[in-house]
Amino acid sequence: MTMGTPEIYKTLLVEQQADVLTVTLNRPRQANAMNLTMVNELTQVMNRAVEQQVRVFIIRGADGNFCAGGDIKEMQAIASDREELAQFNRSFGLMLEQANTLPCVVITVLQGAVLGGGFGLACISDVAISDTTSAFAMPETSLGIIPAQIAPFVVDRIGLTQARRLALLGQRIPAAQALTLGIIHHVSQTQDELDSKLTLAVSAAMNCAPQATATTKALMHKVGKLPMASLLDEAAIHFADSVQGEGREGARAFAHKSKPNWR
Amino acid sequence: MTMGTPEIYKTLLVEQQADVLTVTLNRPRQANAMNLTMVNELTQVMNRAVEQQVRVFIIRGADGNFCAGGDIKEMQAIASDREELAQFNRSFGLMLEQANTLPCVVITVLQGAVLGGGFGLACISDVAISDTTSAFAMPETSLGIIPAQIAPFVVDRIGLTQARRLALLGQRIPAAQALTLGIIHHVSQTQDELDSKLTLAVSAAMNCAPQATATTKALMHKVGKLPMASLLDEAAIHFADSVQGEGREGARAFAHKSKPNWR
Amino acid sequence: MTMGTPEIYKTLLVEQQADVLTVTLNRPRQANAMNLTMVNELTQVMNRAVEQQVRVFIIRGADGNFCAGGDIKEMQAIASDREELAQFNRSFGLMLEQANTLPCVVITVLQGAVLGGGFGLACISDVAISDTTSAFAMPETSLGIIPAQIAPFVVDRIGLTQARRLALLGQRIPAAQALTLGIIHHVSQTQDELDSKLTLAVSAAMNCAPQATATTKALMHKVGKLPMASLLDEAAIHFADSVQGEGREGARAFAHKSKPNWR
Repeated sequence: MTMGTPEIYKTLLVEQQADVLTVTLNRPRQANAMNLTMVNELTQVMNRAVEQQVRVFIIRGADGNFCAGGDIKEMQAIASDREELAQFNRSFGLMLEQANTLPCVVITVLQGAVLGGGFGLACISDVAISDTTSAFAMPETSLGIIPAQIAPFVVDRIGLTQARRLALLGQRIPAAQALTLGIIHHVSQTQDELDSKLTLAVSAAMNCAPQATATTKALMHKVGKLPMASLLDEAAIHFADSVQGEGREGARAFAHKSKPNWR
Repeated sequence: MTMGTPEIYKTLLVEQQADVLTVTLNRPRQANAMNLTMVNELTQVMNRAVEQQVRVFIIRGADGNFCAGGDIKEMQAIASDREELAQFNRSFGLMLEQANTLPCVVITVLQGAVLGGGFGLACISDVAISDTTSAFAMPETSLGIIPAQIAPFVVDRIGLTQARRLALLGQRIPAAQALTLGIIHHVSQTQDELDSKLTLAVSAAMNCAPQATATTKALMHKVGKLPMASLLDEAAIHFADSVQGEGREGARAFAHKSKPNWR
Repeated sequence: MTMGTPEIYKTLLVEQQADVLTVTLNRPRQANAMNLTMVNELTQVMNRAVEQQVRVFIIRGADGNFCAGGDIKEMQAIASDREELAQFNRSFGLMLEQANTLPCVVITVLQGAVLGGGFGLACISDVAISDTTSAFAMPETSLGIIPAQIAPFVVDRIGLTQARRLALLGQRIPAAQALTLGIIHHVSQTQDELDSKLTLAVSAAMNCAPQATATTKALMHKVGKLPMASLLDEAAIHFADSVQGEGREGARAFAHKSKPNWR
């Protein structure tokens, strides 16, 4: 982070270049398994990203894995306390909800283990790119527990049909199948291709006006939750505001074949 | 139109053969960009189609493009009037809602530019066929404005996962990818194949009973908006009515291996 | 069935091996068309499956077809009674709703005709596997009637975009296209491959804890019907309960690299 007091992260690497913030899940010896500290630190970084009006938020994992899911050891340590278990679980879902609705473009870079909570994180990203090493699964039911905060986001992402099979059979699927199911948007064959795909996605995101991005994303999240007519009434007002706001600069740049000032 | 007073259309070509009405968006020098006149004329033609109980409603574009989106020049002309901007935008969405729920089969024939509002129109059709020249995009956010009346229909069509990427990156995708994402139902390799695909779709639509078509389409539009049990209760009544209505002719034709009278 | 009074089924073959119950639709001369007796018998078998806590419920058809839809002859026999028609139709939908939400894993094995009501049954299964002989369609509107209890489940399964085309054109699609659309999860090239695919799916389902399976399935069915936050609140409690329930055995088995007791 470039502003405010410097932050010490126990479970994350955080790097910011201008408007692009990259978070690397960094518990490589646990395949970046999610514990309470990581959940809290991710929440902290997201709050900061909102404050600083970051425009692209990248999530990736250290050492060839994205995230192997919830930290089983830590969960066993609190297994006797029902209340604490529920709170731990819910805090993960709250973090997912926040990530899902961040006002900037969220990109996940997926490799190796994308399991349980890691699978959930992949499912809330605006752009999900992967290499061929990824394996996706919700193995929870095979361990006697449930993918409580994850399954709903998976249903939202790929529909009930595919989500129910994945959750109820607990099977791993490779990147190619994740692409077919619409969990991810692209599979790169090499590390170089993955890097260049990320660069392209960041560039495309930066090409779009920041306020228009935030408003459009919020609008799309409301589909199915409000009646279509109310949604479109509201959207028309936002449209007018966008024309009179960033749209002026967009029209100017378009007419002059120059770059808009948000570029 | 074959009945009533003849209509003069400034932005459309309208042709009716028996129960099949074809509308061609016809502002070829603007790549058939949508202006207020076109929105109003489309509304007029759809009202007429409902009155005349047209059974197939085809939408296509003149001169190798479908529709390049909203007319930017016309929008700039009213850019100082917030109220008028909002109304212009909303009128486009009202037209889309009407097209989405027309009681007949709506077929879009897609070529060249299928952008912004044109993309929205493609997303409300019952059958969408394309050739290989099509490019689909929501470029709005790259111009500083928002795909206000369009993005919700895109989410309805292909789900949030794919819609958020397309809207937030503003990228163009070719017909083959539009097929994979489920925006369209078929890509033809040649103009001839596109023509014959259209003929086949019209023929299949005409093969189905008109009232059954309208009732089934209305039923499907309610899924997710009513509780499943209420929806199915209502559907059972409609089912009984259909058996005692067009179903008698359907059963007669089936038994006699002849064509039903709606064919 | 191994427990309780033996049941005589007129339209089904029912076979139970431990926790796996297989129902074969058995009216081969009618391509296993669904009549009221079959609907009632399926309901009976599902009630029994719930009572006996069956863990996998397999539905298949006799003699190379899955199910050709509603029995047209039987429907014609009651065609003059609007009330009876509606009730017959609704009873089929009630059976589908029950099948959709069974607390165990439902697998359909699809071959030959998967039409109308048969298509509906395929659409409520957690795992749908097929061979290459299958043909899927909702031919109702071409017969002057409506896919009243089926179309809503098809929309739930594959989205409005694909469902509206299939219902309004009444066209048959082969297994390969059903796979692409997400109606089914796998197409086997041979009978042997289909058998081994079924064995694998049963084995994967049995590998998952029974209560976790039921809870997860119920949770996923609520997505889109409750606000996400309420759903996740509730899910967190279920998570805690699962950790303190089957999760103990899961953790024990995981630590000892042995099989859990539900396996």
